[in-house]
Amino acid sequence: MAAAARLAMRARPLSRPNPGVAALVVYQGRIIARGWTRPGGRPHAEAEALAGLAPQVLAEATLYVTLEPCAHRSERGPACADLIVAARPARVVVGQHDPDPRTSGAGIARLEAAGIATTLLDDPASAASLAGFLTRQRMHRPWVTLKLAMSLDGCIAMADGSSRWITGETGRAHVHSRRAQADAILVGGGTWRADKPSLDVRLPGLEHRSPQKLVLTRGPAPAKDFTAISSPQAIAELEGVQYLYVEGGAEAAAAFLVADLVDELHLYRAPILIGDGRRSLGALGLANLAEAHDRWQLAERRQLGSDSFEAYLRCRN
Amino acid sequence: MAAAARLAMRARPLSRPNPGVAALVVYQGRIIARGWTRPGGRPHAEAEALAGLAPQVLAEATLYVTLEPCAHRSERGPACADLIVAARPARVVVGQHDPDPRTSGAGIARLEAAGIATTLLDDPASAASLAGFLTRQRMHRPWVTLKLAMSLDGCIAMADGSSRWITGETGRAHVHSRRAQADAILVGGGTWRADKPSLDVRLPGLEHRSPQKLVLTRGPAPAKDFTAISSPQAIAELEGVQYLYVEGGAEAAAAFLVADLVDELHLYRAPILIGDGRRSLGALGLANLAEAHDRWQLAERRQLGSDSFEAYLRCRN
Ligand SMILES: NC(=O)c1ccc[n+]([C@@H]2O[C@H](COP(=O)([O-])OP(=O)(O)OC[C@H]3O[C@@H](n4cnc5c(N)ncnc54)[C@H](OP(=O)(O)O)[C@@H]3O)[C@@H](O)[C@H]2O)c1
Ligand SMILES: NC(=O)c1ccc[n+]([C@@H]2O[C@H](COP(=O)([O-])OP(=O)(O)OC[C@H]3O[C@@H](n4cnc5c(N)ncnc54)[C@H](OP(=O)(O)O)[C@@H]3O)[C@@H](O)[C@H]2O)c1
Repeated sequence: MAAAARLAMRARPLSRPNPGVAALVVYQGRIIARGWTRPGGRPHAEAEALAGLAPQVLAEATLYVTLEPCAHRSERGPACADLIVAARPARVVVGQHDPDPRTSGAGIARLEAAGIATTLLDDPASAASLAGFLTRQRMHRPWVTLKLAMSLDGCIAMADGSSRWITGETGRAHVHSRRAQADAILVGGGTWRADKPSLDVRLPGLEHRSPQKLVLTRGPAPAKDFTAISSPQAIAELEGVQYLYVEGGAEAAAAFLVADLVDELHLYRAPILIGDGRRSLGALGLANLAEAHDRWQLAERRQLGSDSFEAYLRCRN
Repeated sequence: MAAAARLAMRARPLSRPNPGVAALVVYQGRIIARGWTRPGGRPHAEAEALAGLAPQVLAEATLYVTLEPCAHRSERGPACADLIVAARPARVVVGQHDPDPRTSGAGIARLEAAGIATTLLDDPASAASLAGFLTRQRMHRPWVTLKLAMSLDGCIAMADGSSRWITGETGRAHVHSRRAQADAILVGGGTWRADKPSLDVRLPGLEHRSPQKLVLTRGPAPAKDFTAISSPQAIAELEGVQYLYVEGGAEAAAAFLVADLVDELHLYRAPILIGDGRRSLGALGLANLAEAHDRWQLAERRQLGSDSFEAYLRCRN
């Protein structure tokens, strides 16, 4: 299941508007086939993994799939549940229930009705690989990652607003690779005015992945390739956006945090001290220190040249 | 040599005013004796390591010592170089040259004159274990560690000044263990007025190690157990202080940084966001971002409960 969840990351974000799913077929203890949702959402992972396998192999094989197979046909292809019933693997293991009302248990029910042994897990790795899709289904908004590049003392720019460059080349390339995994990128109006960022993915071979560009502003869109977002809450209306990457600045970041709309923090820290620069966050309106605690949990840390990268996940109980 | 340097950390800080030195005797590939400078500076490491070893063992043994053996007698005991000449180990390996003018090469010369094979290294681990002593000798001031406990966004307190607690229990116990390794602790006048910190070592068994207490202030000492320090530069006059631990606040920290008197940064970061709290540093007077770079290098990182600890060393070229 963990291997399937890792594979599912490849589907992201080009599977949109579909979830990025992965499937593996295991026969006699070995992975003999795999698939993941292709750009635009088709073929589905299951169709790709099962294609061309002989019936006598399938009869002894287990299909691992990160998300419950869909139960609804569309004009673009058959329901995966029907496809699996036709292929008849010995066993199916599912990483996550599909909250889409057109499936929501119906996919698994169909497999079981056909006599295929089916196990539904609540696998955290599958959930993480489907974060954008699950957040859209359950909370009706995209999964939001807030990125901040800062000094050790928490400044995101010098006092005069200059922020090129705080982090080094390796750190900045990492940011571009994360942009490539988003459906949309947002900056605040202040950052737009200060930096006129292009927000492109500047990585060889990934330029075509440059996501939709958004500006948080109470005014109109400041440029033709940018869409204006009038409040953090308005991200709910961004159809098809599963992964939103917020790149600051301080006031926009605080607005998303105050609205409790940040699922993940990405901190890039350069080994420098700035002192009296621009702070990384605007006011959060905390009443006391205790209120600040128990909200964030370290999920990943790595060194990027001389910079440190850390990902924190919002604790949700 | 690395083992000796680790052992030398035990001597710190109670060896003051003497350097915290360690010595190991290796015979047939095994460590058979060891010593480190005892509280108050006596006995010296070499005397302790060599005591009671048989001449026929010593004749085939190597003595490793982190600092060049002293060449000067004092009323408190003989010169270590003489003691080693009398003991006659086959070989002596020295981690660092002793810049004290009373020794400065004379210790090694005496061993060589007596026909003992002597190697002088420039061992970084030995240098690190002697940082306070070497900084006193070479720069005529203590080794300065600046500690800051902050949120992920770089705040050291809420806007109202409250800072209890940002970090958790494990992090705070770590701070107390670092206090126990210092000869003196300093806070700024603002922190004294805000928090009235006791600056004691509150760790079972180490309470007696509580170091001298200093306040950076343009005024008089605010309490009877505190000594007033009128400027960062005035730390040069703190006789016998090899290790100074500066615990903030923001303005005092900036004053030491602007004076380029910080050798090591200790950052404790709690997984919290504060936003509009007190910043960790006052103005540093940087002209541009490039000036902030290439000054600090990550030396250590560890997790302390849910907090992260990082030590950065000042790059000196
Ligand atoms: N190091 C980094 O990672 C990084 C990243 C980004 C930016 N920066 C730096 O940060 C600085 C800019 O930060 P900043 O705090 O001044 O500006 P900002 O956060 O980028 O933008 C503030 C603007 O966002 C809009 N906004 C904020 N809250 C809103 C809400 N609740 N609803 C609707 N609109 C809202 C408003 O735009 P309108 O005024 O248009 O209505 C507001 O003026 C620059 O110096 C930039 O270089 C650094
Ligand atoms: N989280 C942490 O690690 C941590 C640690 C310490 C403090 N804090 C918080 O930080 C806040 C206090 O910080 P702060 O910046 O207001 O005060 P501060 O840095 O503790 O003290 C400032 C005072 O230091 C003296 N000073 C500064 N520069 C000097 C210089 N060059 N020469 C001589 N004296 C100098 C002056 O004292 P006089 O006015 O007496 O002349 C000045 O008013 C408090 O809220 C405290 O809780 C947090």
